[in-house]
Amino acid sequence: MNNDARILLAHGGGGRLSWQLVQEIFAPAFENPDLDTSHDGVVLGLPKSQLAFTTDSFVVRPLFFPGGDIGKLAVCGTVNDLAMCGAKPLYLSASFILEEGLEIEILRRAISSMAETARSVGVRIVTGDTKVVEHGKADQMFITTSGVGALLSDRRIGPKQVQPGDQIILSGDIGRHGIAVMAQREGLAFETTIESDCAPLSGIVATLLATGADVHCLRDLTRGGLASALVEIASTSGRRAAIREEDILVSEPVAGACELLGLDPMYVANEGRFIAFVSKRDVDTAMSALRSDPLGKEARVIGEVGSETDGLVTLRTVSGVDRVVEMFTGEQLPRIC
Amino acid sequence: MNNDARILLAHGGGGRLSWQLVQEIFAPAFENPDLDTSHDGVVLGLPKSQLAFTTDSFVVRPLFFPGGDIGKLAVCGTVNDLAMCGAKPLYLSASFILEEGLEIEILRRAISSMAETARSVGVRIVTGDTKVVEHGKADQMFITTSGVGALLSDRRIGPKQVQPGDQIILSGDIGRHGIAVMAQREGLAFETTIESDCAPLSGIVATLLATGADVHCLRDLTRGGLASALVEIASTSGRRAAIREEDILVSEPVAGACELLGLDPMYVANEGRFIAFVSKRDVDTAMSALRSDPLGKEARVIGEVGSETDGLVTLRTVSGVDRVVEMFTGEQLPRIC
Repeated sequence: MNNDARILLAHGGGGRLSWQLVQEIFAPAFENPDLDTSHDGVVLGLPKSQLAFTTDSFVVRPLFFPGGDIGKLAVCGTVNDLAMCGAKPLYLSASFILEEGLEIEILRRAISSMAETARSVGVRIVTGDTKVVEHGKADQMFITTSGVGALLSDRRIGPKQVQPGDQIILSGDIGRHGIAVMAQREGLAFETTIESDCAPLSGIVATLLATGADVHCLRDLTRGGLASALVEIASTSGRRAAIREEDILVSEPVAGACELLGLDPMYVANEGRFIAFVSKRDVDTAMSALRSDPLGKEARVIGEVGSETDGLVTLRTVSGVDRVVEMFTGEQLPRIC
Repeated sequence: MNNDARILLAHGGGGRLSWQLVQEIFAPAFENPDLDTSHDGVVLGLPKSQLAFTTDSFVVRPLFFPGGDIGKLAVCGTVNDLAMCGAKPLYLSASFILEEGLEIEILRRAISSMAETARSVGVRIVTGDTKVVEHGKADQMFITTSGVGALLSDRRIGPKQVQPGDQIILSGDIGRHGIAVMAQREGLAFETTIESDCAPLSGIVATLLATGADVHCLRDLTRGGLASALVEIASTSGRRAAIREEDILVSEPVAGACELLGLDPMYVANEGRFIAFVSKRDVDTAMSALRSDPLGKEARVIGEVGSETDGLVTLRTVSGVDRVVEMFTGEQLPRIC
């Protein structure tokens, strides 16, 4: 297959060109002992009888941006969702919807990025599918990944496990992914190039859970940002989450870009940041573990869970006023992931 | 949410409208004890330590056609891939890429069809995702499902298990799905309305495997039809598959439509038909089991695996001539699934 070749409808037709695409592009990139390109599904071993299962579609525009691309994002997004269930990611599926006329070289770059990211976290891409739609009926490439993972412990982790007194830890600065993609898409140039925080969080979560710290809930901050993640957890748990603005880290360039664009960094997407709800007695253990990992070296306790049962999120602003944080209505930045 | 409402970009934004879409449309339709809409993934129990895992994207146009729709197809396609691994389908994920402006009522119909099909086979839709792209950047709705299933036996089932002497059974008539979708799309009217064969095959496969018959390979006939499925299996196994045209059932209306349109039914897509490679000594047991199920009442032995190791498929035509069946190059009918 030439590098200047383009995707044809027949690449999605289930015949020779489909087969060629799998054999020449997908199979070599994703090579691993569990990958099965000869069958429509795959049989896998699992160390435990409980598994975590998740899926996400990726429609980011543009496909490539500072700090990442759709391929890296498609692996990180699903790996991170598994990590947030308290699971070690084991296997991924990858399904592609391609627009007729897409340059094969673009597909190859995205796939190579997927393969590299998957290898870096020890997760195997084991099964997949490709469909092609007519030119103008999709936007270059959409990727859907699903993931299966093994629970790292028997402890249930989720919004319903949140308890009064839990400390809320934020793993790093916020808003970089959304601004990086937006700047690339709109051709905005800031003084400093803002790079997406896109990163796989399975390693740092494993480090955190290995301490045995009493972790009640984990959530990566994606679409809707820190605010939406907190509102969802507070509302599901029925507990109040009280956070402090002064402890929420926003880098200088991101803060500047947000001011310029009229965006609130609390609602801007991230792809490598998460929050952890941890028992008060274990917060030091958790913080040490997080800070020992490069992805958590700026982790901070940003607030705690109150005894109120109103399911609200309150923010103490730098000027000392408390205000209720709402779920965002509408769309700040479309197609950010 | 009004029935005449339309999808907005904000329905994919991770804020209030995303939440509303999940709570009002997805959650009630897919309701089951394992569905978790409060978290990005879900933790599941598995009866065995081996699982089958598969994924497929669905881009069929039009979304609704005689005998099925994109929702039914999205469940059947993934359920059938799990069944072909010899697994009982347990859990599905569902990820939606929606075009801005899509009528909510259309989404609701597709989802209700997914839910109904899932319930009919006892598989649970447990996790999902929704993205929205701008009007003109997708074609109404694309659905990607992934599935996890538990192996029904310890026997490995796949192309590499195919043995010389294996009998090749086809579960019913071919070509109905492709012609049904094509006719609907192009506004072709035949004397009889041709209905898609779209159906979940997990029940009939469970019946077959419960007999203990020595089944070596199973494959559902989707894109590329019977011919492509046979060519792939023969080529992967390195064995020759010899089939007889006279034993391959094509209904009168499908045969007529194919003749009119210049299509070969051997390459036309199906969504509820499969082939089974079974040891010669167990073929009667297998045939009885298949014929006891409404989806297999027209099952026939269409050929057998030879001792040649050339990986070819040969077809003995009704006129008694043997010809090699090739993998299709190009695209007969785009966006059939």
